[in-house]
Amino acid sequence: MTFIDRPLVGENKISDATVRRLSLYYRSLKYAYDRGMRTISSQELADMNNLTAAQVRKDLSFFGAFGRRGLGYYVADLQRNIARIIGINKTWNVALVGAGNIGRALLDYDQFRQQGFLIKVLFDNDPTKIGKTFQGLEVKDFGNVAEEIKQNKIKIAIIAVPAQFAQSVVDRLIGCKVRAVLNFAPITLQVPENIWVRNENMAIEIEALSFALTNRRDPTRTI
Amino acid sequence: MTFIDRPLVGENKISDATVRRLSLYYRSLKYAYDRGMRTISSQELADMNNLTAAQVRKDLSFFGAFGRRGLGYYVADLQRNIARIIGINKTWNVALVGAGNIGRALLDYDQFRQQGFLIKVLFDNDPTKIGKTFQGLEVKDFGNVAEEIKQNKIKIAIIAVPAQFAQSVVDRLIGCKVRAVLNFAPITLQVPENIWVRNENMAIEIEALSFALTNRRDPTRTI
Repeated sequence: MTFIDRPLVGENKISDATVRRLSLYYRSLKYAYDRGMRTISSQELADMNNLTAAQVRKDLSFFGAFGRRGLGYYVADLQRNIARIIGINKTWNVALVGAGNIGRALLDYDQFRQQGFLIKVLFDNDPTKIGKTFQGLEVKDFGNVAEEIKQNKIKIAIIAVPAQFAQSVVDRLIGCKVRAVLNFAPITLQVPENIWVRNENMAIEIEALSFALTNRRDPTRTI
Repeated sequence: MTFIDRPLVGENKISDATVRRLSLYYRSLKYAYDRGMRTISSQELADMNNLTAAQVRKDLSFFGAFGRRGLGYYVADLQRNIARIIGINKTWNVALVGAGNIGRALLDYDQFRQQGFLIKVLFDNDPTKIGKTFQGLEVKDFGNVAEEIKQNKIKIAIIAVPAQFAQSVVDRLIGCKVRAVLNFAPITLQVPENIWVRNENMAIEIEALSFALTNRRDPTRTI
């Protein structure tokens, strides 16, 4: 996540934090539904995500979902609505740039596919990689990015290249009408106003562990 | 993150969500300090992270940090305090299990090191990998995990092995007194009560992009 380098979001009613929580609620609802729950209260959703019930109600009210007192929300309805809001009620064709370690690791990452993000084209600029096949995808020459992006109707790209190449890669992608980028390179990308960038930060997760070891004497099973 | 499979956290005053926000505040404070800010208000910290000022004040009050009206918080003090709370005011020796794509990608991931998480030992069970060197680290035989963990005083491990091996790996690590695990395998690990597990979920980040493309007509630069 970028949290430090982004401009303030004033005009958008739904904040990034809310969107992230919607993704969590979606998973909680799936979990609840799979276990036979058909209704769920804001308090239950809050407890599953370590939030307050008021926060949950506020988040859901942004798109007009209001639970009923004593009943709560219908699980299936709410899940479907959140999927629609997040945009995962359909599939997205995704381009992955970088067939190095992290890129190839992402090809194996089932959760993208499960949530409807289909990696359709894999690029690299390394002649020793171009033409090779990983997970059934042939590595394409990034030099041909324009036609591949167009042909696969791609709006979302994942950048998994070394830091020093990331900016030129994103510039090129934007030139091909890619509109959103998930960036694994540890630099802040400079992009025009109409492009979305999300930076993956794995260090945040490991800090939860150092916190736990530093402070908690009675851990729960998972955090 | 695991949010769906964890038991409710009742006894711990500071929730996972709060800890995650502390990590964000830490980065915001670093960003602010680097730009010359010496004091910061809860509203400013809130704006940088798309939260309410009340939420920021509540999170910080857990460990006794109270801003002063009209002045706010001292940036350096607050940053130092949060580092101490999260446990990143010192370094942690970390073991990485799995020298595959994701494992090797994590060796290149500077942010772990920057936050004080030092990958000291790299394991695999593949004879073709054992003895090879990646990023200056020799791949050790996971069969010798006990002595390496002990010698390097390791409490935190990263699991980057295929799903079907992850449970046996974590069982073995726990037997070696590892107490916290960052899990990249897409399964829910079963661990005793006194062990911490955090699951890395990269799909959450990409959902913010589909949300943005689905809903927002005037994106800001980054999210």
